Amino acid sequence: MTIGEIGEFALIDRIRKLLPLPGEDVVVGIGDDVAVLKADAERVWLATCDVQVEGSHFLRAAIDPVDLGHKALAVNLSDVASAGGRPRFALVSLGLPRDLDLAFIEGLYEGLRAEAEPLGVDIVGGNISSVRHGLFIDIFLLGEAPRDEVVLRSGARPGDRILVTGSLGDAAAGVALLLDPSLEMEAAYASRARVRRDRPSPRVREGRLIGAAKTATAMIDLSDGLAGDLGHLCEKSAVSARIFASALPVEAANRTFSASAKGDEWHLALHGGEDYELLFTSPPDKAGRLAEEIRKATGLRVTEIGEILEAGQAPEFVLPDGKTVGFGGGGWDHFSIVKGRVER
Amino acid sequence: MTIGEIGEFALIDRIRKLLPLPGEDVVVGIGDDVAVLKADAERVWLATCDVQVEGSHFLRAAIDPVDLGHKALAVNLSDVASAGGRPRFALVSLGLPRDLDLAFIEGLYEGLRAEAEPLGVDIVGGNISSVRHGLFIDIFLLGEAPRDEVVLRSGARPGDRILVTGSLGDAAAGVALLLDPSLEMEAAYASRARVRRDRPSPRVREGRLIGAAKTATAMIDLSDGLAGDLGHLCEKSAVSARIFASALPVEAANRTFSASAKGDEWHLALHGGEDYELLFTSPPDKAGRLAEEIRKATGLRVTEIGEILEAGQAPEFVLPDGKTVGFGGGGWDHFSIVKGRVER
Repeated sequence: MTIGEIGEFALIDRIRKLLPLPGEDVVVGIGDDVAVLKADAERVWLATCDVQVEGSHFLRAAIDPVDLGHKALAVNLSDVASAGGRPRFALVSLGLPRDLDLAFIEGLYEGLRAEAEPLGVDIVGGNISSVRHGLFIDIFLLGEAPRDEVVLRSGARPGDRILVTGSLGDAAAGVALLLDPSLEMEAAYASRARVRRDRPSPRVREGRLIGAAKTATAMIDLSDGLAGDLGHLCEKSAVSARIFASALPVEAANRTFSASAKGDEWHLALHGGEDYELLFTSPPDKAGRLAEEIRKATGLRVTEIGEILEAGQAPEFVLPDGKTVGFGGGGWDHFSIVKGRVER
Repeated sequence: MTIGEIGEFALIDRIRKLLPLPGEDVVVGIGDDVAVLKADAERVWLATCDVQVEGSHFLRAAIDPVDLGHKALAVNLSDVASAGGRPRFALVSLGLPRDLDLAFIEGLYEGLRAEAEPLGVDIVGGNISSVRHGLFIDIFLLGEAPRDEVVLRSGARPGDRILVTGSLGDAAAGVALLLDPSLEMEAAYASRARVRRDRPSPRVREGRLIGAAKTATAMIDLSDGLAGDLGHLCEKSAVSARIFASALPVEAANRTFSASAKGDEWHLALHGGEDYELLFTSPPDKAGRLAEEIRKATGLRVTEIGEILEAGQAPEFVLPDGKTVGFGGGGWDHFSIVKGRVER
């Protein structure tokens, strides 16, 4: 049987079973956005890695290396943010073809530096290997947090409100434009969508605020799309969820585009990947205040979009007319998964 | 200008200049075997990464995936050992073609587990990405050590003795056999050389003992060959070195093979890579005792092979007849570098 046939989530399950139980200093091992490792009595380290591979994540001829540098680090920053952590140290592992132009590397590091420096993240080492095909940039990021401020995927409880930062579906709209430039999109929105695609903004400040508030019960970053990542959060928390379409922070231009390109005005918001917003849950008496705190401190929109249901209930997507449907199929198994991008 | 034209060390220098100076919690950044990061007042974290790429480091058809798992982790364990640290946590970043057989992954993790478990190293997470060409396994390893027991490349002083664990040139003899099975090698030695090539033994216990003894002034692991790695150590310590051929721990069968295959009986010992032994320095009044302590505790051979010279002196390789030559060219610039395997 091949990797492609078994599927990536089943593969990860197999791998988990091949490994022994971790030691006592591993607070959280395989299965969340980050590994959580005991640093001392009060603090933990958060460790994660994510790679950008030519041909799978980007096309060399189409990407600006500065954007690639930004993005390669941003996707990792987003993972640390989604646990409520402060990113600290990065290692950069590069696989480079020997005929690569030096200017590409200089652009790449310009992007990495621009992403790291404002957050106080130090690039402390790495590795360079030659590859024949398929340039890659693999980043290992270490963050830290007070142990009692770490927010995992697994703490959501029935009744909790579901909140999300920023807006949804923009990066996917940008990707759709890249794949088919003839698609019609409102010009001002198209330029915003392209920026969201090429320069994701990991919500690092927001993640720290959410952790420090100690009123969020679960959190995940949106890399695979709202439906898929909400599915991960619900699975880890052993709960279900209801989302209200009318509450989703989606631009009108995105809905129009989604309806014409995908046949459904909510498709990009639900199934479009790489928004790198934070999706989190909080009890009903605390959610409003938490959202307001983040808004005030950062200026970023925070929206309540639904609520957590008991485990046995079917996941619900409530349309503006009150009709309830599933998420593009009706069950977690149908949640969209971006190929080649699987969290462990 | 391309990466291949500028060369990898010059590329790393360029990269270093593109980055800002690291913050105060970075004890050692780019340029040693590991990054050294402040954990608390007494302890540091040691962070490193190294990748095995199909086509550059191994051929998929020729390698046993169990061996690949062992080796992928071993090369990282060796880096932490070479700083005197205790390896603790690993993340595994995999780039996998979709047609890869599941049995390959199971073998890979069998090797990873066998390498990790006896040392108490936890595999705590990672990432899986699909690749079109060129399977890779990239490992990020975190170790720890008391801050005053970390041994860097940079502390060697003139007069210090140079010591090495184990034996030299065996892995390279194994690689030569792989590339040309028709080469003549004594049968018993050939089988030892193959094991050293396929299952390197990172000197983790020895590294911890050397760190804890606090009498070593500098250390590096031998991945690029004695000449090259001694060159790195001398460069970082701003010193030179003299090595005595007659003292080198090289099996007679290796010298015979090296003479016939490479035209020089010392070639594999000096320039063969991937031995993953530890090369370290210690003041003359402490070196003998340090070597004896390691031998007694681990049973592994430790050999004094030379001494550190002042910076201005030419590096010397003293042949058994007393004649002094350089290391295959006479200067550090001619030290051999294994392509595609560059430490940062």
